[in-house]
Amino acid sequence: MRPHSDPGPRTPGPGPRSGRAKIAVLLSGRGSNFVALAEACARGEVPAEIVLVLSDKPDAPGLERARERGIPTRAIPRKGLGREEQERQMVAAIREAGASWVCLAGYMRILGPELVSAFPERILNIHPALLPAFPGLEAQHQAFEYGVKVSGCTVHLVDAGCDTGPIVVQRAVPVLDDDTPETLAARILEQEHRAYAEALRLLLTRPWRVEGRRVVFS
Amino acid sequence: MRPHSDPGPRTPGPGPRSGRAKIAVLLSGRGSNFVALAEACARGEVPAEIVLVLSDKPDAPGLERARERGIPTRAIPRKGLGREEQERQMVAAIREAGASWVCLAGYMRILGPELVSAFPERILNIHPALLPAFPGLEAQHQAFEYGVKVSGCTVHLVDAGCDTGPIVVQRAVPVLDDDTPETLAARILEQEHRAYAEALRLLLTRPWRVEGRRVVFS
Repeated sequence: MRPHSDPGPRTPGPGPRSGRAKIAVLLSGRGSNFVALAEACARGEVPAEIVLVLSDKPDAPGLERARERGIPTRAIPRKGLGREEQERQMVAAIREAGASWVCLAGYMRILGPELVSAFPERILNIHPALLPAFPGLEAQHQAFEYGVKVSGCTVHLVDAGCDTGPIVVQRAVPVLDDDTPETLAARILEQEHRAYAEALRLLLTRPWRVEGRRVVFS
Repeated sequence: MRPHSDPGPRTPGPGPRSGRAKIAVLLSGRGSNFVALAEACARGEVPAEIVLVLSDKPDAPGLERARERGIPTRAIPRKGLGREEQERQMVAAIREAGASWVCLAGYMRILGPELVSAFPERILNIHPALLPAFPGLEAQHQAFEYGVKVSGCTVHLVDAGCDTGPIVVQRAVPVLDDDTPETLAARILEQEHRAYAEALRLLLTRPWRVEGRRVVFS
């Protein structure tokens, strides 16, 4: 029930970066949503700056795409650390980078309390279905096999569940007669790229609060 | 997996009613979806004719709206009969009226095997949410409280479950910042009125089949 209108820590004084929220992106794969978000930030559509790309997979292709853009990267594998210690190290890395927001972009693990409670109502995820329909893995495949005629994507605040947090933005996508799971997934992905930037822009530029489990913009 | 392209029994010879499918509508309430469907048939948007409006409630306002349109009505309450016998009598009434399709329009009971098996893949229902999200009662309220940003409506073939049958048409509806459950329900209802006619028109005019649980138009 807390009101928010928080663009994150501000750099002092005027300049192109003043007032921009600092964001850490977590990914395990190619990070196409990370790239779309980075480009939206670069075009000035979202008042934010990605200050760190963090992965549990040292070989995640998304890390290379971050380095190409001059964005600092870190890999903190779970192996040998266990979930708790790995998440503690991730929290430390995110704080060290000065980020106040965390965007999951194909991070293939459910977050534990170490991460979720460190950034309350400041962690976002994107899911390739209209939640609460088709949570979990291979959502586009699930939707196709179920036979829905409308699917889409969801950007939501992350809580301790799997794809259960309060919803910020959803975009609907039609399922066409000649679709395959792959063509449907590609059509949804186009909307994911728009939805993530839209959600972040809304949260950073408008007053909002969580009422029950509704994200309410005023 | 059976192919279909069946407009129902045809009246012989030429004339305005030839080739029109005969439909029975089942309702328990005011029947706004029945009225919208009747008007779409009257405008020629759907090649069908409503030949019977049937209710489990003798005082359902939808029956009066049918009589105003000169459409035959029947009320077969469950009380005193039990579900099985009531459904047997409904099947008999539907067959007697010559209907080959059954459209549920706010019929507030889950159909038993007597009705479902009598008209396989010929019973349609409309639900005020994007199934499989928010099945059951007060779907618009459920969606509002969940905090989705997109909801909608679903027309589906009826099977033995509750809101589980193969989906024919879905229409998405945005949830707006200043919505209440009531304004959302009203916005969804507008699309329900379009979706039901659209679904029936598709099923009556295009070849289709059920593959797994997908309704596939070719």
